[in-house]
Amino acid sequence: MASPILGYLDPDYLAIMDHTMVLLRHLFQTDNELSIALPGTGMCGMEAAVCNIVEPGDEVVVGIHGFFGQRLAEIVERHGGTAVRVEVDFGQVVSTDQIATALDTHPNAKMVAIVHGETSSGVAQPLKDIGKVVRERNKIFLVDAVCSLGGAHVPVDESLIDICYGAGQKCIGGPAGIACITLNDRALGVIDARSRPVDTWYLDLTLIGKYWLSDRAYHHTSPGSLLYALHEALRLIQEEGLEERFARHQKCGDLLKAGLTDLGLELFGDPANRLPMLTCVMIPDGVDDATTRGRLLRDFGIEIAGGFGPLKGKAWRIGLMGYSCSERNVHYLLAALREILGN
Amino acid sequence: MASPILGYLDPDYLAIMDHTMVLLRHLFQTDNELSIALPGTGMCGMEAAVCNIVEPGDEVVVGIHGFFGQRLAEIVERHGGTAVRVEVDFGQVVSTDQIATALDTHPNAKMVAIVHGETSSGVAQPLKDIGKVVRERNKIFLVDAVCSLGGAHVPVDESLIDICYGAGQKCIGGPAGIACITLNDRALGVIDARSRPVDTWYLDLTLIGKYWLSDRAYHHTSPGSLLYALHEALRLIQEEGLEERFARHQKCGDLLKAGLTDLGLELFGDPANRLPMLTCVMIPDGVDDATTRGRLLRDFGIEIAGGFGPLKGKAWRIGLMGYSCSERNVHYLLAALREILGN
Repeated sequence: MASPILGYLDPDYLAIMDHTMVLLRHLFQTDNELSIALPGTGMCGMEAAVCNIVEPGDEVVVGIHGFFGQRLAEIVERHGGTAVRVEVDFGQVVSTDQIATALDTHPNAKMVAIVHGETSSGVAQPLKDIGKVVRERNKIFLVDAVCSLGGAHVPVDESLIDICYGAGQKCIGGPAGIACITLNDRALGVIDARSRPVDTWYLDLTLIGKYWLSDRAYHHTSPGSLLYALHEALRLIQEEGLEERFARHQKCGDLLKAGLTDLGLELFGDPANRLPMLTCVMIPDGVDDATTRGRLLRDFGIEIAGGFGPLKGKAWRIGLMGYSCSERNVHYLLAALREILGN
Repeated sequence: MASPILGYLDPDYLAIMDHTMVLLRHLFQTDNELSIALPGTGMCGMEAAVCNIVEPGDEVVVGIHGFFGQRLAEIVERHGGTAVRVEVDFGQVVSTDQIATALDTHPNAKMVAIVHGETSSGVAQPLKDIGKVVRERNKIFLVDAVCSLGGAHVPVDESLIDICYGAGQKCIGGPAGIACITLNDRALGVIDARSRPVDTWYLDLTLIGKYWLSDRAYHHTSPGSLLYALHEALRLIQEEGLEERFARHQKCGDLLKAGLTDLGLELFGDPANRLPMLTCVMIPDGVDDATTRGRLLRDFGIEIAGGFGPLKGKAWRIGLMGYSCSERNVHYLLAALREILGN
């Protein structure tokens, strides 16, 4: 990010954009030509994914198993759509049958949207069977991979995902402020067939796509420093290897979960579907949330997150993402927690 | 930007946000509490400014004297508003009388929107008298200061501007990818009185304001590296002094315009209202646009921009902004142009 700035149409800059697309296709495990960065955070990826598809009056089936699924539904409604909520408790995953039933009772639904890695609950939503159900009914399948992308398999083409997005930070290991997104021809076809322009001009993927792919037409001033960092982060992912990187996240996640259990803490959420990179653990009785997290931050330089929604004040969320995902960090955190909790 | 990342709720990070607001108020010359950064480029600032005010059916008077005024009108319409276009030729400015007439014939208009520094034409739109006309009629006055903020006076309170935004790059001298915006209580009152939520969740200033000002509620993951850079750029502006900085831009801009005239080139646009930081100059007959700009970039390491819209292929746009605004750079460019053009 300290490299000199290049203009957004400088030939050297366009070459970095082109190579970023190659690396994004590798990470998303897709052949989608439109695999690009977006000038905003992961939430900007969510908004772009939704607002380019949804027109007023459209129905969207939203699988909700946590905070970010609720946000997906809210954003659908902001853009005039109707969210058909398929909701399960925090910590559970949505079943394929639930999605199939929702599509059967809402045959005009345009899209199914769901979060893969729920940062709010630490749960990993299985996608593949849902992808089949959605494709059979010829709907669009949108998957939020902000938490998981770069730390676990998100095989876009194999899972029949039509739109998928992630963020520069999290498991990609770059800075916040830049998102990435991929769309296949099915999704682009739906966008082409819109009856009215996308309401959010800034996130109009047709215009942004023209800058990345075809006529290089000015849309926004590309955030060069962030793109350098994203490009380098993606290069490091390629260098490490997808399988090796995902195995590292799995191993560290398992080590953390075992260590927390050894400390007598109770893990949250469906044991069959836990994320490797985000561990949600219940705060023991009699332990104060803010005091403990404050001590971790001040005395040990470790930041862990509090709970969201129904887990606020009741659970911690511990991330092991990208560079920070190391056995050394797991051991250090466990030692710090042991000292603070006196276990 | 190479500083270690802090969490978006880390107390040290919140302190940087708070000080950024102080520095932004200084730069915008305003007392507005809500003077904050936005997680996106200057265009994200434009979209945020428009979409928080405009509801479907609203009329907005848009003063158009170039490419970015046209964009303002387009974005008004994307959000369901009706743009009342008050258009003049590229290179001219909109008169106060034209705005007053438009408001008289559209008494229900909610807002007047106009670009201060038109990057596409090099012209500076006078604002103060328009501000009075808009305030007298109790409308909202929105000003785009992307090109000018940090390089010329944009006295928000004195000019009776209700909403104003800029970008991290340009004359602020930071990186692209972060915008800044300020809103007064009149504008916030209009937002509070909306009949429906803002369609673009990502740019909902009520939610973003809660993160910056009140309950620190999570909205997006703040782009920390970019905020560090914006904060430092604003600190440098304060250190240099507003008057000193604007005088530097004026002096270098004048030097460039005089030098280009000496080379026999013709400046574009209303001589009474030219921007200091962006000089638009006609390409001489017989000189090829792309070849000349290519040589400047390759042989001299200087990037100048081509023309927009009616000026495409006919004019160059030369920026002197922030750090790059120095007499040394002016002399270097003039020498390079002299060599290439053989004048």
